[in-house]
Amino acid sequence: MALTILKGTILSVPALGRLEVTEHGYLAAEDGRITGVFPVLPERYAGAHVEDFGDALILQAPADMHLHAPQYPMRGMGMDLPLLDWLNTYAFPTEARFADPDYAREVYRRLAHDLIAGGTTRVCMFSSLHREATLILMEELERAGVTGYVGKVNMDRNGAHNLQETTEESMEETLRWLEACQDFRYVRPVVTPRFTPSCTDELMAFLGKLAEERDLPIQSHLSENTAEQAWVCRLHPDCAQYWETYAKYGLWNGRTVMAHCVWCDGRERQAMKDAGVTAVHCPDSNQNLCSGVAPVRVMLREGIRVALGTDTAGGDKVSMLDAASSAIRASKARRILDGWETDFLTAPEAWYLATSAGAAFFGEQPGFAPGNALHALALDDSKLLQPHPLTPEERLERCLYVRQPGAVRAVWSAGRRVFTAKDR
Amino acid sequence: MALTILKGTILSVPALGRLEVTEHGYLAAEDGRITGVFPVLPERYAGAHVEDFGDALILQAPADMHLHAPQYPMRGMGMDLPLLDWLNTYAFPTEARFADPDYAREVYRRLAHDLIAGGTTRVCMFSSLHREATLILMEELERAGVTGYVGKVNMDRNGAHNLQETTEESMEETLRWLEACQDFRYVRPVVTPRFTPSCTDELMAFLGKLAEERDLPIQSHLSENTAEQAWVCRLHPDCAQYWETYAKYGLWNGRTVMAHCVWCDGRERQAMKDAGVTAVHCPDSNQNLCSGVAPVRVMLREGIRVALGTDTAGGDKVSMLDAASSAIRASKARRILDGWETDFLTAPEAWYLATSAGAAFFGEQPGFAPGNALHALALDDSKLLQPHPLTPEERLERCLYVRQPGAVRAVWSAGRRVFTAKDR
Repeated sequence: MALTILKGTILSVPALGRLEVTEHGYLAAEDGRITGVFPVLPERYAGAHVEDFGDALILQAPADMHLHAPQYPMRGMGMDLPLLDWLNTYAFPTEARFADPDYAREVYRRLAHDLIAGGTTRVCMFSSLHREATLILMEELERAGVTGYVGKVNMDRNGAHNLQETTEESMEETLRWLEACQDFRYVRPVVTPRFTPSCTDELMAFLGKLAEERDLPIQSHLSENTAEQAWVCRLHPDCAQYWETYAKYGLWNGRTVMAHCVWCDGRERQAMKDAGVTAVHCPDSNQNLCSGVAPVRVMLREGIRVALGTDTAGGDKVSMLDAASSAIRASKARRILDGWETDFLTAPEAWYLATSAGAAFFGEQPGFAPGNALHALALDDSKLLQPHPLTPEERLERCLYVRQPGAVRAVWSAGRRVFTAKDR
Repeated sequence: MALTILKGTILSVPALGRLEVTEHGYLAAEDGRITGVFPVLPERYAGAHVEDFGDALILQAPADMHLHAPQYPMRGMGMDLPLLDWLNTYAFPTEARFADPDYAREVYRRLAHDLIAGGTTRVCMFSSLHREATLILMEELERAGVTGYVGKVNMDRNGAHNLQETTEESMEETLRWLEACQDFRYVRPVVTPRFTPSCTDELMAFLGKLAEERDLPIQSHLSENTAEQAWVCRLHPDCAQYWETYAKYGLWNGRTVMAHCVWCDGRERQAMKDAGVTAVHCPDSNQNLCSGVAPVRVMLREGIRVALGTDTAGGDKVSMLDAASSAIRASKARRILDGWETDFLTAPEAWYLATSAGAAFFGEQPGFAPGNALHALALDDSKLLQPHPLTPEERLERCLYVRQPGAVRAVWSAGRRVFTAKDR
């Protein structure tokens, strides 16, 4: 039996906004599965090797529940364009380059490394429409230690001259891709219609059937932008709302992840709740592309599942710690927009969305629950100035905003140690 | 005569939103004063030493026009508190520690280094009320190469038990501090009533007179938060608006910098314009403390002087490149708040606010104008992935959002080379 015991100040979020603190405690895992968090080392582990991180924080490793791998090279560009123009001017030409496997290898190796080095061990990720590049992406993620879902994108209309499939190609390539996915252990396939305007009815019907037959999860975009919503309604005059264009093809259920949900009204939110759909909030992207500010507090209050994503490259940051502070800042913009009627997110709430809420989509219990796969990171904040001896709560809040160079000392993913910082 | 010639892709913002590009050009300075930007090296400089930064960008060094030096150790903490509670719970206890000169030395050395390493060469900065610590701050800034204005804070009411002066102490210490300021060349004093609620009428009158007699600039806070505005009006029932509490004591003129200006209405903005007051926009701070989102576009359209600040530690970031992208993001929140009626800031506009607009307060012309002191930085983006060969405009935009480790290669301040990155 492989035993991992980490010592440090262990912080976990077992419920929305509830921070559990075990100072100088022990986080133990057997064969990669957590057995518990202990203030004192249990007798059964007496004499076992303990990796002591001193005063460092041991945090749950976050899950980035929405990002576009092929957009990684274009972070921080074209931010003066609204969504649909930005897609045509930046995103589509950039994604088209992934027809070249060498370019895909170079970019995806960097991305996989940068994710792990920042502590992100789980993803729900869009690739491009290219089967080969998607398999390269999955290889590189698996090699680096990133786990989760990756989708070959389906798009058979409204793309670009060099970024579109025929309906038949899209179906065939998807089936060939799924075949090849059997080689991966930690990175699994997710059915990925880009968004309703990108997929014909025939393709949507095929994807819904595929998801059902093969018991696959589904990811797409929902109500990011008002122009997009209007377009979807023009394309599907039989549907009163955007979500129905997914629902009518079997793409709307408890294993569905929908990015953004900025403009979902009460009825659309009720449909999310009824089906158990997970909304992925992408605060930086929504503000960068001037889409709006998602009503996260309202969704949480209504009992909708909400997780967090960077949305690289509508979002400009890779780190989910940054995404958490951006979610807090966005919730304050939302509070201002709502005439101070809605509460903003606290640091433990935002960190819950960045960690436990995403992990739930992979079937895990919140926090460092016994039975969960070990996904953790050790974070060193010893070189930061401090005005007074900080509480663990203050240290958690601060690390979402400010981190020293090389703050992430080590990362564990699915029980394996996947990153160790070089000493500086 | 000392000659400096830098070669690279030279970007400057000689007017709001206008980016001037000289690819592989020369930026020249004689005795620390810029003589020009040249696409080809002028004959008079033939044979002179040219420092070639290859493909790097040569940018104007930014000016951070509002930050609180003693709050540097508390960045990223207490962000769930509104302004007035945050002041009492975090800012005041932290500032009180600067009664200790050793603590001041440690923190201010770090701060001065971090500012320069990030390319910030000009500041308009609050110290604490402590004379000795303020002089230590000025020493450390001067030593590191930061130039600009620093103010000993005046506060003789509504402080904390360990962070408040009597009126007499405040006056005497200010005079003693000004005496000692004569030792500094690049860092000059600025009259600094903390904000109206912190200063008795007697102290305000003294400070106004002092500014006039000694021809000193003035900095303070204005209309950051609605609770603060209401408090000011209760304290000064004779004043219809916040700005009048400064104006009536001679603290409102063309050498006045007012931080925030989130809630200034048309009348208050007109008073700013008439007096030539500079508003300092602090986007992250305003959102972190849930103050609101300043109407920057409206102020610019009305012809009010607007510059940019980090507001450490209401703001959590030190880099003015980050402050520029935060200003863009905030302007998009403002656009959403305004029902899409106001335009957001473009990257060249935000960069103008971060550089030329701040430099104007120090009497400089916008851009790399001949006659200006050389304040510049060389920024390397060669290790970032790119989706296509980037234009200089795209590179400027990107560096506000994304930078490689060690991106700032070198920094010049008031003609002197003050920073050189270690090779990694």
